[in-house]
Amino acid sequence: MLTMQEALRTLSDYWTSRGCLTWQPFNTEVGAGTMNPATVLRVLGPEPWDVAYVEPSVRPDDSRYGLNPNRLQTHTQFQVILKPEPGDPQELYLGSLEALGIDLDAHDVRFVEDNWAQPAIGAWGLGWEVWLDGMEITQFTYFQQVGGQDLDPIPVELTYGMERILMAQQGVTHFKDIVYSRKPDGTIITYGEAFGQQEYEMSRYYLDDADVSVNQTLYEAFVAEATRMVEARLPVPAHQFILKSSHAFNVLDARGAISTTERAKAFGTMRRLMRQTAELWVERREELGFPLMKEGVVEGEALAEPISVDVPADAPAATFVLEIGVEELPPHVLPHTIDAVRAAVTAGLGASNLDHGDITVEGTPRRVFVVVDDVAAREPDSQTLRKGPKWSAAFDGDGNPTKPLQGFMRGQGVTVDQVIKAEVGGNEHACVAIDTPGRPASKVLGDLIESTVTGLRAEKNMRWNDPALSFSRAVRWLLALWGDTVVPARVSDVVAGRTTYLQRSTASSQGAGALGDGTPVGHHDVATATDYLPLLRSGRIEAFTDQRRARIVEQAVALAARAGGVVDVEGNAELLDEITNLVEDPRGILGDFDERYLELPDRILVSVMAKHQRYLPVRSVDGALMPHFITMANGACDDVVVAGGNESVLRARYEDALFFWNQDLEATSAEHFIPGLEKLTFENRLGSVGLRARRIADVSQALADLVSLDETQRQTLVRAGVLAKFDLSTSLVKEMTSLAGFVAREYASRMGETAEVADSLYEMEQPHTTADEVPASTPGALLALADRYDLLAAMFGLGARPSGSSDPFGLRRAALGVVRILRERAELAGLTIRDGLEAAASRLREQGVDCTDKTMDAAEEFIIGRFAQLQRDEGRSAELVAAVSPSAARPGIADAHARSLQAVAADPGFRALVEGIVRISRIVPAGTRPDYEPALLSEPAEVALSDVVSGFAPASDVEDFARRGEALVAPVAAFFDETLVMAEDLDIRTARLGLLARILYSAPSGLDWSAVDALVS
Amino acid sequence: MLTMQEALRTLSDYWTSRGCLTWQPFNTEVGAGTMNPATVLRVLGPEPWDVAYVEPSVRPDDSRYGLNPNRLQTHTQFQVILKPEPGDPQELYLGSLEALGIDLDAHDVRFVEDNWAQPAIGAWGLGWEVWLDGMEITQFTYFQQVGGQDLDPIPVELTYGMERILMAQQGVTHFKDIVYSRKPDGTIITYGEAFGQQEYEMSRYYLDDADVSVNQTLYEAFVAEATRMVEARLPVPAHQFILKSSHAFNVLDARGAISTTERAKAFGTMRRLMRQTAELWVERREELGFPLMKEGVVEGEALAEPISVDVPADAPAATFVLEIGVEELPPHVLPHTIDAVRAAVTAGLGASNLDHGDITVEGTPRRVFVVVDDVAAREPDSQTLRKGPKWSAAFDGDGNPTKPLQGFMRGQGVTVDQVIKAEVGGNEHACVAIDTPGRPASKVLGDLIESTVTGLRAEKNMRWNDPALSFSRAVRWLLALWGDTVVPARVSDVVAGRTTYLQRSTASSQGAGALGDGTPVGHHDVATATDYLPLLRSGRIEAFTDQRRARIVEQAVALAARAGGVVDVEGNAELLDEITNLVEDPRGILGDFDERYLELPDRILVSVMAKHQRYLPVRSVDGALMPHFITMANGACDDVVVAGGNESVLRARYEDALFFWNQDLEATSAEHFIPGLEKLTFENRLGSVGLRARRIADVSQALADLVSLDETQRQTLVRAGVLAKFDLSTSLVKEMTSLAGFVAREYASRMGETAEVADSLYEMEQPHTTADEVPASTPGALLALADRYDLLAAMFGLGARPSGSSDPFGLRRAALGVVRILRERAELAGLTIRDGLEAAASRLREQGVDCTDKTMDAAEEFIIGRFAQLQRDEGRSAELVAAVSPSAARPGIADAHARSLQAVAADPGFRALVEGIVRISRIVPAGTRPDYEPALLSEPAEVALSDVVSGFAPASDVEDFARRGEALVAPVAAFFDETLVMAEDLDIRTARLGLLARILYSAPSGLDWSAVDALVS
Repeated sequence: MLTMQEALRTLSDYWTSRGCLTWQPFNTEVGAGTMNPATVLRVLGPEPWDVAYVEPSVRPDDSRYGLNPNRLQTHTQFQVILKPEPGDPQELYLGSLEALGIDLDAHDVRFVEDNWAQPAIGAWGLGWEVWLDGMEITQFTYFQQVGGQDLDPIPVELTYGMERILMAQQGVTHFKDIVYSRKPDGTIITYGEAFGQQEYEMSRYYLDDADVSVNQTLYEAFVAEATRMVEARLPVPAHQFILKSSHAFNVLDARGAISTTERAKAFGTMRRLMRQTAELWVERREELGFPLMKEGVVEGEALAEPISVDVPADAPAATFVLEIGVEELPPHVLPHTIDAVRAAVTAGLGASNLDHGDITVEGTPRRVFVVVDDVAAREPDSQTLRKGPKWSAAFDGDGNPTKPLQGFMRGQGVTVDQVIKAEVGGNEHACVAIDTPGRPASKVLGDLIESTVTGLRAEKNMRWNDPALSFSRAVRWLLALWGDTVVPARVSDVVAGRTTYLQRSTASSQGAGALGDGTPVGHHDVATATDYLPLLRSGRIEAFTDQRRARIVEQAVALAARAGGVVDVEGNAELLDEITNLVEDPRGILGDFDERYLELPDRILVSVMAKHQRYLPVRSVDGALMPHFITMANGACDDVVVAGGNESVLRARYEDALFFWNQDLEATSAEHFIPGLEKLTFENRLGSVGLRARRIADVSQALADLVSLDETQRQTLVRAGVLAKFDLSTSLVKEMTSLAGFVAREYASRMGETAEVADSLYEMEQPHTTADEVPASTPGALLALADRYDLLAAMFGLGARPSGSSDPFGLRRAALGVVRILRERAELAGLTIRDGLEAAASRLREQGVDCTDKTMDAAEEFIIGRFAQLQRDEGRSAELVAAVSPSAARPGIADAHARSLQAVAADPGFRALVEGIVRISRIVPAGTRPDYEPALLSEPAEVALSDVVSGFAPASDVEDFARRGEALVAPVAAFFDETLVMAEDLDIRTARLGLLARILYSAPSGLDWSAVDALVS
Repeated sequence: MLTMQEALRTLSDYWTSRGCLTWQPFNTEVGAGTMNPATVLRVLGPEPWDVAYVEPSVRPDDSRYGLNPNRLQTHTQFQVILKPEPGDPQELYLGSLEALGIDLDAHDVRFVEDNWAQPAIGAWGLGWEVWLDGMEITQFTYFQQVGGQDLDPIPVELTYGMERILMAQQGVTHFKDIVYSRKPDGTIITYGEAFGQQEYEMSRYYLDDADVSVNQTLYEAFVAEATRMVEARLPVPAHQFILKSSHAFNVLDARGAISTTERAKAFGTMRRLMRQTAELWVERREELGFPLMKEGVVEGEALAEPISVDVPADAPAATFVLEIGVEELPPHVLPHTIDAVRAAVTAGLGASNLDHGDITVEGTPRRVFVVVDDVAAREPDSQTLRKGPKWSAAFDGDGNPTKPLQGFMRGQGVTVDQVIKAEVGGNEHACVAIDTPGRPASKVLGDLIESTVTGLRAEKNMRWNDPALSFSRAVRWLLALWGDTVVPARVSDVVAGRTTYLQRSTASSQGAGALGDGTPVGHHDVATATDYLPLLRSGRIEAFTDQRRARIVEQAVALAARAGGVVDVEGNAELLDEITNLVEDPRGILGDFDERYLELPDRILVSVMAKHQRYLPVRSVDGALMPHFITMANGACDDVVVAGGNESVLRARYEDALFFWNQDLEATSAEHFIPGLEKLTFENRLGSVGLRARRIADVSQALADLVSLDETQRQTLVRAGVLAKFDLSTSLVKEMTSLAGFVAREYASRMGETAEVADSLYEMEQPHTTADEVPASTPGALLALADRYDLLAAMFGLGARPSGSSDPFGLRRAALGVVRILRERAELAGLTIRDGLEAAASRLREQGVDCTDKTMDAAEEFIIGRFAQLQRDEGRSAELVAAVSPSAARPGIADAHARSLQAVAADPGFRALVEGIVRISRIVPAGTRPDYEPALLSEPAEVALSDVVSGFAPASDVEDFARRGEALVAPVAAFFDETLVMAEDLDIRTARLGLLARILYSAPSGLDWSAVDALVS
């Protein structure tokens, strides 16, 4: 069993023996090996660069005083960069695991999608987390951009998490128990003995003792130096100061001293500096003549050219198989890719004349394949006519070609004996018949392969060492057989052949290829197309999605039953789909966890299992979670080993959660956590989270005064206001921020709060997402509104409104939350958006935030704009949205209007009514009193109208108005026909206008009648 | 041939296979591997700790843009700590060199004294630089103190300079050409390709671009955090911030922004913080229960006890040999040790009764031995008498013992028959004869060995893994034979035996022991004492100092002759002595250097050869340096290899010097360098060195006004004043600060200045040391005075006077310089110390420095105090110093007085004269006018005296006064005998006092007559 230091040496030896230069850890704190200049700078530009090094990586935020079994403020990465990526990095990587003594046949090693991005340095790449029995041990990334620069050539980065690997290998459950070194006399030193004190003390520094203002000073100083070094055109020191500023930032962050604004600003600064530094680096390397671009470097072998084949025209039809071999595709990419390949192949064959039978397209994470039955050897020959001059004008009297015909013949390159007469478009023309011989299948299929593979695209695509391809993951091989013949095809650097690759683990034991020898492992030649699927089957690869899923479900159900439980196949449908696209040879493995973790809420347990680990939870028949889980390994392995590994991963995660859970629950009252909120910065100009929580409570009270609450609701609101956001200072939420609100409810109810208070605290965070529900209670809804109004008023007050794609405070989401609550909680329909903003603004003004009328106008407009956008997204027409827009300040009201309008819009009576209302509203000046002296009206039409109007009660809503308003239509029309509203006699004119105003008054308010008119007409 | 990365791996493998834990380079800039917590903290306290790691070490000051072949801002150390030191660290170390492929039989590997101290962290240790063919490749130190804490157990530190080792091994002359890594396909990456850009850019940052104020801010911030962390009892972060502050300091220093005050202050801060951190670390480890003090660690084997031997009493005399085997002693320690051992052995044998012949004590750097001829097997037996009561009182009348005798017998434990009569002191007493048997030689010699070895001491002593010994270097073995018998002796942990150790290099090829197997290499058993010296001879070890020296001289002369030159044996006497004590088997090797280096001044060339490398320069018969040198290797080696290695060391040093020399000489005028002085900070309150230079020029002018200069001198002074200190901004002086002044002269004369100006610039730095000469010209002397006055006045003005042992500005040396110049330059004897201080103070006051009368008084007193101390050191009596003290403000005058006083002190006439003068001075009140009205004198004695006095011209000096003053003696005596000075008549009294005052006036001034009286009586 390797000690940690032996493992580091083994990796170092392995990679240097494969050409890597050994670099040293950087002498400035870095958060990851990526940030060492040996990666972040050297991956830029055209120079080759293969490097391997250890990197103790510092993450102040991960400080746990050495208590957490898996989390350390400094963890040890082993970092490898291969630039350009060598074509077989996965195999090289697996070879390094074997070098570490990891038996690939016993363990479940998986490449699980992980798209790496570090926006703060303008970097991203695609790749995987490598899982060893469910534990992430390596980050494996094809870098695409760094410092905002497109990379060329593409490097691959491998980052090994050494503590995790060693814990798994040594079978220990806490990092401190890792055997770090062993002397010849057998004395060992453990990780804890070597680094425990450092873990404790640096955790103390990062979490408790670091001076905030000193670190702010440091941050500013480092940024200043980085900026100056960019100006001085010195990328090396510039980069160093970026790292230093980043570390200072991380320290401040760990101390809870970074507000959202500061974070956004710092990230912007870092991104800018890193982009400038990266540009500079490339420029400087070019000035230096790219020293590592050496002459005499051995070029890769020339690519084999596809061999063209002659297939006899009369050869019988044969099966065509195409396998596109890829590195592990992300699960969501696989079905799309299958569909896209199916469409491309179907269309391509359809556009040809090649006879063929059924087309099957299917796939696994590592291959997408096409099987086409009975593909003819060639297309039939065909003939086409080229039309020349009319036959009548083709020959002169002597039977000699006329000038037009001569021109045509020259153009076609034919002689007169090849000219024929043919009818085209009802006229006889001189024509030439062109024979088009049918293309051989090899040609048709070859072209099809090339266009299909070249056309592969996913939502996120990457480049690798292939000069022309771009796809979700690297395409590594093509198998293309028509019968027993290889279809000649070459797609960029990949030449089609008859070789496929089975699973790596089983294959390595079969001796078919060795890891790291420069080719993928597990290769098998396929003699003829129809052998392909049987070969996959023989390699236990389940090629068909449905069958794979069925195998998974079958195994899961059986394993759950073995544990005396069931698996909710329906409820886990999405997870099952994902698993299906994660494995080629699903092998169900049942694992257990300690019952004491069942103390934790379901939601936490299941979320860890399903989201993080893709495990299926096992439940008893009554639905209670059981201390078991099911994972699907990819292919043959040692079940005990794999179960053990996965169990320890889960144990670590649960132990973490339980530790915090218990720590928090030592408090006897939720109020215990309130003082902790003062230490959390919300935004530097807005004070602590505690201050914000108090503002929210105040605002919720102010809003409560505008609606009617019963006594219980009122008490609930007061108490929940006192406790607002308390869970943000609990250990569990600090660790798992997505549990905010949920944890509040759980803790509050356990600490003696009423169910209503607990629920309100949960609800105040709702809705989290557009799919989430709005608060179920009025107090919860008022707190949720207050929370969002405070945020919106504050940020608009500070001039921090969203711009473009940047919305660091999530103001769009907050505005949508406001709108949804106001729409969906009927009892709050009467509240205007402005009511909420003003309530929030008045508290903020006391703190000196500049919530002017103008900024609040902007905030209101912003929220209303989000409401309008939301309605449009829901399918409402622009006219309808406009029609209700005068009510938009009360989205509930506007919604009711909209629904009514939709109900009556098609009614001709309503249309006529609207016409009348629009006519009236055009003539009645704004501000006219809706009252008149009936005695002044004398003409019959006006008297008739007055009679109707006087008995017309104002409409309660649009539908009521539509229903009863029909009575007004004819009298109004008659009135306009027969009466001059603008009578010379001022009194009469006033009376008539008052009469009309009265009608408007009776109509429902809050509508834009012109827009309604446009809507109904 | 190993690449650099292979060499690092090889060392890592070598040391981990010997039980070292592999640590990582630190993630904060460190100046050396020592500063990594794996060394600086882990060496503290009782826990064992064996560790090995690579440490890229950052020294901003060494930045050279990657141009210098040997100097890098980041160089790579390989660091090893063995705690406790294992007893054979030298052998383990040599084993690591063999692992690196270094053939110890071909190369000259030497352990050259190097006493490591880093006062800034309160650390020191004794040890060596290890030289490989003259190149320092490793620092080898037994740590004694760190952070002001005594270490126990004692750790040994090995610090390999990897670039140097690799350059030597790969035979390249510039670090950039080192092959850093080699891929399996043969592609190499050189050091320059991997690190060249970094060297350039970081040099730019450190030397040119670092922002001074930002780095000052950083420094302060880091110190603040370190201080807070000490208070928080967290030594790990405290140490980290000490490192960060240290790096910020180094950056400021490289930018020339650190003044002497700031340096002293920063060092004080760092020392304090490091001491507190070290204390804390030990406390914290103790609180943690010293986790690395493991049970079950295998204890060392119990020490063999010395075997006691029975030597027959009649055995013949035999030779005694004692060899004290030590690790390489510093050359100056060896002769003292030989003397001390000789004294101890001589005294010890003298105090015994053991017969013996000649005592020879001699030694080499690795052994001090004693040979005593004809040592008897035992001391002769002897008898002593114990005296009882008087015989007459011993027996009663019956012949029975009286009570007194009975008491005596009981006390002696004898019976009456053992009582004899003997005469003692002239009386007969009852006595008992006690036989004292002679001790065997083994006992006498064993005790002698123990006391001798235990008593070994040098000026600087260290401890190692022996619990009781303390000496200049570790005592590793004792050979002690009397004839063929091992003398049983044990000194603390070292047991004497018959084994000696010859040279390691030749021995390893003889298979007598292997490196790193736990014992010194090259051991040989010695059968009998007389075989010892022949054995050394057979191992080519020249045991006798004189013979070794003779062999060195002989070889040197021969080698010089071979090169057509000579060696100045006389002139290099000290160097030859040093070499003699550096080697056991001197093997002269002639090396060459490129003639173009002869362009450099002799002084530079010779200083590098002799001081740094201990090479003998070769000169032609006319005294000119020749491009050759002679080095003495220690024992058999491959002459070509060793010469080549030494040549490359010298080449690198000369290349450096020549590079700067030529760079500087591109300037056509010395004035070119003046602006550069503005960039050098002298002291932050005193401005730049440029400003100081201008002050010095001004002060020298002011002093010139007080002495008489001819026109040439005046012009010289003006011009030299303009150029004062210009060489401090030359590249050469920045590199080799000890050349200041010398370089000024060299450059000035090459840049068109007159010889007088050039000399003055040289002289203004004189005297450097007490042995150095004072300026030879008046302008030089004035500049030298001005320089020192400026320093003294400024520092006293700033309140920065020396205290205790702290004198960071060298004020004591400056004061001594002032005194020496004023004493030795006769033309300046009239200048007072205060004249100079005032001249300096007036310029400083213009700059706002608070040079008050009080502070200038203190400065004057300080200088005078140094003068007094100097005189005492020269052997002048306290009385003499006191006698001239009234003249101390003009040391030249005081000196003249002192010399005269010494000349005449024994003269009885002078003594009588002084008596008279003292008598007069007691009676004459201060301020009495030296004049009188002769007419008022009437008594014979006073008339007689007046007659003599009126013809007595004031004495020009003491000797003149002594000579002529005899005429005064008798009249003065008579005057006092016969005249009442204090006559009742006031006029008469005034006249008499005036007469006496006139005598005082005629005596030389500037003497304290009471002190003169004490001196002569």
